[in-house]
Amino acid sequence: MSEAVQTRAESMISELFSERSRLAGTGPVGLDPKWVTQMIAFGGGFPDPSSLPILDLIDAAKIALQRDGEWALQYAFGSGVPEIVEQLTRKLERDQGIRAGVENLLITSGASQGLALIFELFLNPGDVMISESPFFLGAVETAKANGAEVVEIPLDDDGIVIADLRGALERLRAEGRRAKFLYLVPTFQNPTGITYSLERRRELVAVSEEFGLPIVEDDAYFDLRYDNDKLPTLYELANDNGLVMYVGTFSKILAAGMRLGWVVANPEIIRHLSGLKNDSGTSPFSSHIAAEFAASGTLLEHIGHLKGLYRTRRDTMLAALDASMPDGVTWTRPDGGFFIWMTLPNGLTCDAVSTKARENGVSVGLGTMFFANGTGDDKVRLAYSFNNEVEIERGVGILATVIRDLLRDAPETA
Amino acid sequence: MSEAVQTRAESMISELFSERSRLAGTGPVGLDPKWVTQMIAFGGGFPDPSSLPILDLIDAAKIALQRDGEWALQYAFGSGVPEIVEQLTRKLERDQGIRAGVENLLITSGASQGLALIFELFLNPGDVMISESPFFLGAVETAKANGAEVVEIPLDDDGIVIADLRGALERLRAEGRRAKFLYLVPTFQNPTGITYSLERRRELVAVSEEFGLPIVEDDAYFDLRYDNDKLPTLYELANDNGLVMYVGTFSKILAAGMRLGWVVANPEIIRHLSGLKNDSGTSPFSSHIAAEFAASGTLLEHIGHLKGLYRTRRDTMLAALDASMPDGVTWTRPDGGFFIWMTLPNGLTCDAVSTKARENGVSVGLGTMFFANGTGDDKVRLAYSFNNEVEIERGVGILATVIRDLLRDAPETA
Repeated sequence: MSEAVQTRAESMISELFSERSRLAGTGPVGLDPKWVTQMIAFGGGFPDPSSLPILDLIDAAKIALQRDGEWALQYAFGSGVPEIVEQLTRKLERDQGIRAGVENLLITSGASQGLALIFELFLNPGDVMISESPFFLGAVETAKANGAEVVEIPLDDDGIVIADLRGALERLRAEGRRAKFLYLVPTFQNPTGITYSLERRRELVAVSEEFGLPIVEDDAYFDLRYDNDKLPTLYELANDNGLVMYVGTFSKILAAGMRLGWVVANPEIIRHLSGLKNDSGTSPFSSHIAAEFAASGTLLEHIGHLKGLYRTRRDTMLAALDASMPDGVTWTRPDGGFFIWMTLPNGLTCDAVSTKARENGVSVGLGTMFFANGTGDDKVRLAYSFNNEVEIERGVGILATVIRDLLRDAPETA
Repeated sequence: MSEAVQTRAESMISELFSERSRLAGTGPVGLDPKWVTQMIAFGGGFPDPSSLPILDLIDAAKIALQRDGEWALQYAFGSGVPEIVEQLTRKLERDQGIRAGVENLLITSGASQGLALIFELFLNPGDVMISESPFFLGAVETAKANGAEVVEIPLDDDGIVIADLRGALERLRAEGRRAKFLYLVPTFQNPTGITYSLERRRELVAVSEEFGLPIVEDDAYFDLRYDNDKLPTLYELANDNGLVMYVGTFSKILAAGMRLGWVVANPEIIRHLSGLKNDSGTSPFSSHIAAEFAASGTLLEHIGHLKGLYRTRRDTMLAALDASMPDGVTWTRPDGGFFIWMTLPNGLTCDAVSTKARENGVSVGLGTMFFANGTGDDKVRLAYSFNNEVEIERGVGILATVIRDLLRDAPETA
């Protein structure tokens, strides 16, 4: 087809696109996932490639397909195949302290799909949702795609600031409006790495009950704790009050490429999420193999292995930052998860740092991607999950040099 | 939680649900996929369990994971991992006569997700779409979930009736309205089994160009042809005019449980579908394994095997119908695919037949599920894909007895 015909067809077709599509915008096409190997990748939350349990998954695939192949390769409509539901139920009770029945569970294509479905369940264009500030970039995008008005509430070291949350809820109430839900990542928050204290969790559940505010608890990093004792989930603290939706994933503890996550919630919510889930069921193939991986005990072993591996990387990155960053740069010290959140001094922008770092072979996460309100210019997210220790030390060294150079060259603006 | 608290929480939460969720309704939760083994299952379009290539997939999984495990188990955002895109491009050119570049392709979680994304791309609530009458029940549900007004156009033996289609388009134009797209299954149509003639395909493309009407060509059964030569796809006939979206799937030729399908379309459409696809990419795990299955030549061999197997089943079902159905019952004779469409005589309803058949161990597809307008009471869909020949003969025998009994007992109403 000639370019002119192509352009005419495209403009004719795009006149017909829905409001929903206009909000969502375009997505990547033809992106080669191997791009991350071309630099030291502090930008994305990619699991360590060498940690992926390839041989154990080959074994699990063989066992699961030999035993249950007829069902692993067949359609399975609805909320999830029984084998993965059973394993997940056990895992949630053992590790998360969450008791969930079949009626409380939806297996999804990663936590991404779980979040997308929950946002669709509640949000009409123009509806209010509340988020942390900053918050997970996938949720920022999904909020935009649903046309949400996002009220962003600051975080301190113990979590979302309750006075600010309460203030926002009271303001909305005075305006005769109601927030549809609060979205948060209370454990090893993405992007800041902070963890909500037990007291803050309790306060949050109380505020949620007082205002009838549903909470979406995204707990993607729960299992990857390197220091201190685990804390109860909001889902557990809310004690089946029906207001908390708990979202999790196998992406960080098994394999992101299998696209398996879950939602735990009130049965009425699960039934409606299942109604919105229009993909004829989450992969029985991946579900059966992951279920075998969990049933054999390999998952639990593997989580132990990952904790050791990522703890060392976090320690390596923190030590490298301590050793090399110029004065004025600050960062968080997470107890788990994948991320450190850095604040730049003197009007230095994440765009400037990112551009110059890329030229020197290091990618970072732009702070601005983690806010719906356009702020975050002085923030950078660093993931220590993908690269090994040698690369982490080299990458932080490069980043420190980049920041030092930019600070020296730029007039002081702050 | 007490039942009273649960009920209060559910009613409080459901007040907050979006318009979109209200349209979509609830979905199944806790459904055991093994229910289909409890009866002779003519109801669903389930692939034959014994045909699923379990051992070949174990081999493909081993090879793909050993070679590319780091990428099969990692995130891959965007339109599809390069390995499956390459294999699909070859398959489409070899079998379907479709030349597609990376920019024309989106890999989806089955054709279901592809259709759902296309419907979302075009439809605002209240928008008009055009369908065949009857049409695929998954599309009926997706149309409802998007709040579409469906204009249903009758089929004859050669496809959608062009005069009726043209009449509907002219009526819409006179009202100042425009249909967003036409959805159809031109080859071994679901549910009727009919195939559009070459002439009808050409006429359709001409009407589409005349009215600027996009066409969604759902070709899930393309490879499963048992008689006569293959016909060109609408996508090929439209010769890159940008108006045809071609949807396909590995569900019928490899494994429904792997949830792999695709959309071929204009690059502008693909970019926007990718924007709506909020699941962080279709499974790299399944994609790498399916790509290996295709690259090794096993897919092509397997399709040949399936054609022989399903041809025999179709012949068995047709012969059994010929031998046992009472006068007045009529049915289609498909050249391929999974389905036969039966018309009941004398006011007999599909509900009555289905209820009585179930009591006797046979499930059928209710005709009413394949219309958006509430008709189809005298229609039944029979799938010959799931059961073996002995079961097919027994099932048709039971069904014939059920129909004969109902005809004898019921007063003639038509």
